[in-house]
Amino acid sequence: MIDNITSVRGIKCWGAHIGIKSLRRDLAIIYSEVPAAAACTFTQNAVVAEPVKVSRKNVQNGRAQVIVCNAGNANACTGLQGQKGAEAMVKTTAEELNLDPSDVIIASTGLIGEPFPTEKVVDGIKVNVQKLSEDTKAGSFAANAILTTDTFAKEGFMDFKIGEIQVNMAGIAKGSGMIHPNMATMLGFIVSDVAIDPELLNSTVKECVNKSFNMITVDGDTSTNDMVAVLCNGLAGNEVIKSKKDKGYKVFKEKLEELMIHLAKLIVSDGEGCSKFIQYRVVNAPNEKIARQLVRGISDSSLVKTAMFGRDPNWGRIICAGGNSGVAFDFTKVDLYIGNKQDIVQVLERGVPLDFDRNYLKRLLKESHIHIRMDLNSGKAEGVGWGTDLTTDYVMFNSVYTT
Amino acid sequence: MIDNITSVRGIKCWGAHIGIKSLRRDLAIIYSEVPAAAACTFTQNAVVAEPVKVSRKNVQNGRAQVIVCNAGNANACTGLQGQKGAEAMVKTTAEELNLDPSDVIIASTGLIGEPFPTEKVVDGIKVNVQKLSEDTKAGSFAANAILTTDTFAKEGFMDFKIGEIQVNMAGIAKGSGMIHPNMATMLGFIVSDVAIDPELLNSTVKECVNKSFNMITVDGDTSTNDMVAVLCNGLAGNEVIKSKKDKGYKVFKEKLEELMIHLAKLIVSDGEGCSKFIQYRVVNAPNEKIARQLVRGISDSSLVKTAMFGRDPNWGRIICAGGNSGVAFDFTKVDLYIGNKQDIVQVLERGVPLDFDRNYLKRLLKESHIHIRMDLNSGKAEGVGWGTDLTTDYVMFNSVYTT
Repeated sequence: MIDNITSVRGIKCWGAHIGIKSLRRDLAIIYSEVPAAAACTFTQNAVVAEPVKVSRKNVQNGRAQVIVCNAGNANACTGLQGQKGAEAMVKTTAEELNLDPSDVIIASTGLIGEPFPTEKVVDGIKVNVQKLSEDTKAGSFAANAILTTDTFAKEGFMDFKIGEIQVNMAGIAKGSGMIHPNMATMLGFIVSDVAIDPELLNSTVKECVNKSFNMITVDGDTSTNDMVAVLCNGLAGNEVIKSKKDKGYKVFKEKLEELMIHLAKLIVSDGEGCSKFIQYRVVNAPNEKIARQLVRGISDSSLVKTAMFGRDPNWGRIICAGGNSGVAFDFTKVDLYIGNKQDIVQVLERGVPLDFDRNYLKRLLKESHIHIRMDLNSGKAEGVGWGTDLTTDYVMFNSVYTT
Repeated sequence: MIDNITSVRGIKCWGAHIGIKSLRRDLAIIYSEVPAAAACTFTQNAVVAEPVKVSRKNVQNGRAQVIVCNAGNANACTGLQGQKGAEAMVKTTAEELNLDPSDVIIASTGLIGEPFPTEKVVDGIKVNVQKLSEDTKAGSFAANAILTTDTFAKEGFMDFKIGEIQVNMAGIAKGSGMIHPNMATMLGFIVSDVAIDPELLNSTVKECVNKSFNMITVDGDTSTNDMVAVLCNGLAGNEVIKSKKDKGYKVFKEKLEELMIHLAKLIVSDGEGCSKFIQYRVVNAPNEKIARQLVRGISDSSLVKTAMFGRDPNWGRIICAGGNSGVAFDFTKVDLYIGNKQDIVQVLERGVPLDFDRNYLKRLLKESHIHIRMDLNSGKAEGVGWGTDLTTDYVMFNSVYTT
C-alpha cells in the first residue's frame, strides 16, 4: 500500500479517459469534501490559456474545493470558443458537485490552438464526478490523467506532526517532457489536510515554488498553461496556522518545499531526449535572488547543456553563462566545482583556472547525475536548481514532432 | 579589384600569423594615419575579458588611431597575467606607432582561461606595424586574422556622397560560429573617412548596433569579448557633422546601419551546424523596444529553432516564445505569417488559427532562408532580427569540442 493524494483526509479523486487523447486517461478531478484554503501560482508567459484566466480569478478569494484538469488540449490560443469551453468546465463542475463556481479551479494541458473539446469535457465531468473515490488507485488514476508526453506519473506524499496531530500532504505533477509539441506545460497539484490561513498559504506557496518548480529548466521556456495549485482543507484539526510564528508553520513550510522539490526533480528526470540530470548550486552569494538567477542563467545555457552531454568540463561556458544571467558578480572571487554525486573537482579558485586532472573529471561526467557548484565567496545565501543536458535526441524529437 | 577597409582614406592595415594559432593568421592591425573619432560598444556579460577593460577606458575620450586584435586566445579569465598582457599590447603598439596609449583599442578572441601569450603578441606587433599597408590584400589579411572558427572572412564596404564629397566606410567582422569552444565572440571593426563629432558618433553607433549586431542570435549568449569599434578619421574633408540635423548625418547613419546589418547577417550565415537562416520581423508594435525584444525572445527559443530545423510550421511555439520574451502584448490582435523569400503564409489572424495549407507551408520551409513575421496591430514600430535553426549537428559540434 502506498500513500498518495487520497491519503489526505477528505480528498477524493478520479482520473478517466474521456476521448480527448486516443488511449490514455485525460481527465482528472481532485475534490475536497469541505472548502479548502487555496493558493495558486501561474505561468509568467504573456500569452495565457483560458483555464489560467478563469482559475486566476476563482482563486482570488483564497478558497477552493475542487481541481479539474484535462489533458490532450491546452485550451490556449482558442479565442471565444475556448473561453466558453473553460466557463462550461467550471459551470458543469460546480453544478454537479453543488459548489459555488468560484470554488472550482481548472487546468488544461496539451495541444495549443486546437478547438477545445467542450462537449467531451462537460460530459466527462458529469460521468466522472460520480466516481470520486478515496481509494489509492483513484489517486494514481488522477496522477496519470494529467500527463501528456510524460513517461511516468509523478507523485509525492509526506506526513508530519503538529503537536500530537498527524498532518498529511501529497501532490501530483506533470512535466515538461522535452518532446512536447507546442510547449512543455508544467502542472503541480498539492493537497493537505493542514488548517492554515489562506493569505499565509498564498505567500508560502509563492516562496516554495520559487525554490522548486521555478528552479528547474528543460527548455528555458514557460508555457501558456503552467500552474501550481495547493488546497489545504483543515481536516487534520490543528489550530489554524495564522502567522509565521504559529505552531506548525515552520514544519509545514519545510515539508511543502520538500514535496515541491521532489515533484520538480521528477519532472526534470522525465525530460525526454536528455541523458543527464544536473544539479546546480550557487553558494555564498550576497542574497538568494542573485544565487537563483545565476543558477537559472547557467542551467538554461545551450552551450553548458551541450558540454554536459559531451562530458566536457568546459568551465569557461559556465562562467560565461553566469555572466549572461543579468546579475553582477566578482569573477575574481569565484570558486567553481564540477563533478557528480561521488566526487567533485575544483576547476577555478578565486577566478584562477586550476590545473585539474581533466581525464579524471571526464570520467566523473560519464555519470547521469552531475553536480556543478559555484562559490561566489561574497555572502551567505545560496540557490539550487536542476536541469538537463542538450542532446542530439532532443533536437530530433523536437524537430520532427508534427512532420 | 574590390573595395575593403583599405579603401577608406588614411587607413592602413595588416594581418599576420604570429603563432598563437597553429596555421591561420592571428594578429590584425587597423591603423588610421590621423587620430579618429572613435566609439565602441562592448559585451553586456558580467565577466569581461582584459582587452575589453582596457579598450573601454581608452575609448572614453572619443578618440583612437589604431585597433589591434589577436585571435586564438581570448585573454579572458586570465587574472593578473592577462591584465599585464593587455597592458603590454597597448604599450607596445603606442610605442611602435608613436601614439598616446589612450589612442589604442585592443581586442582578443579565442580560448578562455588560457595564459595570454604576451611575448608572441608583443613581438608580433613590433614586426607587423612595419608592414602596415593600404593595399587591398592587407585589408583581406586583417579580415582573416580576426577569425576563430569562422569559415569565411566577413567584409563590407559602402560609399556615399555628402554634397560633392565622396565618403567611404568599410568594416570587417568575426562571428559567433556555433562550434566555438568556450563562447562565440562577436567582433566588428568599422572605419570611415567621414568627419563627425565623437559624441554624436557614440550615440549613433549605439543605435545602429541595437538594430544590427544586437539583433542576431546563434546561441543566445554574449561572450566575454564581444566588441564593436568604429573609427572615423575625417579625411573625406566634409564639414564635421556635429548634430543630427547637420548635412550628411542622415545618410551616414543609414549607411552605418546598412553596413552593420550586412556584417551581422554574414555572421549568422556562418553559424556552423545550422541549416537555416531565419529573418524575424515584428511589425505594428507600440514601440521599437517592444518589437526588438519580441524578435530576440522568439529567435532565441530552442523550441522555435528546432521546429524550423524540422520544417514544422509550429506557430504555437512562436507565440509562446513571444509570450516569454518579457513584454506584454495582446495575443487577440496578433497576425502571424511563416514562409520564405518567395512566399509567406498567414497562420494566425487576430489570434485565431487559420486553416492554412500545411503541406504547402512545409514545402516553403524546405528553403534555407526562412521568414517569420508577427503583426501586433498595436502601433507603427517594427523590429527585425536574424537567427539560425537548432540542429543535431549543432549539438554534436558543441558537445565534442574538447573531448
